[in-house]
Amino acid sequence: MRLRNLKNTTEIMENSPYLVKAPENYCGKTSQLFPKKQPLHIEIGMGKGDFLMQMAMKHPNINYIGIEKFDKVVARALLKIPSDLENLKIYRFDAISISSLFSHEVDKLYLNFSDPWPKKRQAKHRLTSPFFLEQYEQIFKTAKEIKIKTDNVPFFLYSLETLSQQGYQLYEISLDYQKELQIDTAQSEYEQKFCEKGIPICHVKAVK
Amino acid sequence: MRLRNLKNTTEIMENSPYLVKAPENYCGKTSQLFPKKQPLHIEIGMGKGDFLMQMAMKHPNINYIGIEKFDKVVARALLKIPSDLENLKIYRFDAISISSLFSHEVDKLYLNFSDPWPKKRQAKHRLTSPFFLEQYEQIFKTAKEIKIKTDNVPFFLYSLETLSQQGYQLYEISLDYQKELQIDTAQSEYEQKFCEKGIPICHVKAVK
Repeated sequence: MRLRNLKNTTEIMENSPYLVKAPENYCGKTSQLFPKKQPLHIEIGMGKGDFLMQMAMKHPNINYIGIEKFDKVVARALLKIPSDLENLKIYRFDAISISSLFSHEVDKLYLNFSDPWPKKRQAKHRLTSPFFLEQYEQIFKTAKEIKIKTDNVPFFLYSLETLSQQGYQLYEISLDYQKELQIDTAQSEYEQKFCEKGIPICHVKAVK
Repeated sequence: MRLRNLKNTTEIMENSPYLVKAPENYCGKTSQLFPKKQPLHIEIGMGKGDFLMQMAMKHPNINYIGIEKFDKVVARALLKIPSDLENLKIYRFDAISISSLFSHEVDKLYLNFSDPWPKKRQAKHRLTSPFFLEQYEQIFKTAKEIKIKTDNVPFFLYSLETLSQQGYQLYEISLDYQKELQIDTAQSEYEQKFCEKGIPICHVKAVK
């Protein structure tokens, strides 16, 4: 994702009530971050955060955590969050160590427009690689749900394979979900741009 | 599948050494139909039989049974089989009762260009519906493998869902297998016609 230069990244990050410092300290006790004990849905690679912000506003009965590894992207998201959203927190963190952030407390994971890492030798970096799926075993409660949206068909088909191989059952598979499915979701600016260009978006709900 | 009128259907069927009469009688003992005891691969809806004939010629170390419910289609296939193919048999049978034909003796099932039954209320007729997948549990040995080729994308995606929901792991998923995969397969006349028209063929290998 390209971002215009943001000069006061550090300042924005230090002053935001939404950014959780040292998120590893909340592993196993993320409910302490929120005023209400309710289901926890997370997004890895939340980008500028539009998707998660909309979901948090739409579903006050769910707690949301967005994870993003780049400071500048995080700062951009922090600037956008309305000041009264108490069911949303942001982690600046590299998902490669995601299992150190949560201990059997996540109900749902969103992966929206994840980096497809198209080359075969890069496959392990994909957020649906066996390496990551193995880590997700540690973060989910007993019931697991992963929802994927992507414009990248090879990444999508790869994910269907790895998910099924990890024992997930697949639902709501679509190569053009906006035409074919009626689902409860939100659209980031990023996704809206694809739609304006007429690019179809793939979707799957994987449950275990 | 459209077929020109074939007048002597009954005669062809009665005289062919490839057609197995009363195939239910061989349930649990299909190996008696073949000179060699070796793995058994079947195709449901074999049509005019090109695919299975090619496979049987290519793999003399595997026994093949093709299943087709329409007399005229079966007769058309029987006319085509070369006279010295000892690892191929044909059943004239409706797959709706497939579990009365085999008892834990099938190693691999091919579904090529199956009727997609496109309407939602017809979904139970699809050869990958939960009803059929449940029956396949009875016919397979412990290790199960289903290989699907189809030009019908909605049927394909439906099958990925039902297969994963039945516990199958998905491999070699492709929306255009001829461009994307290097797999051991054979092409029926029917498939060749699609290729000539530039229609991509979907492929998946499901394993349980």
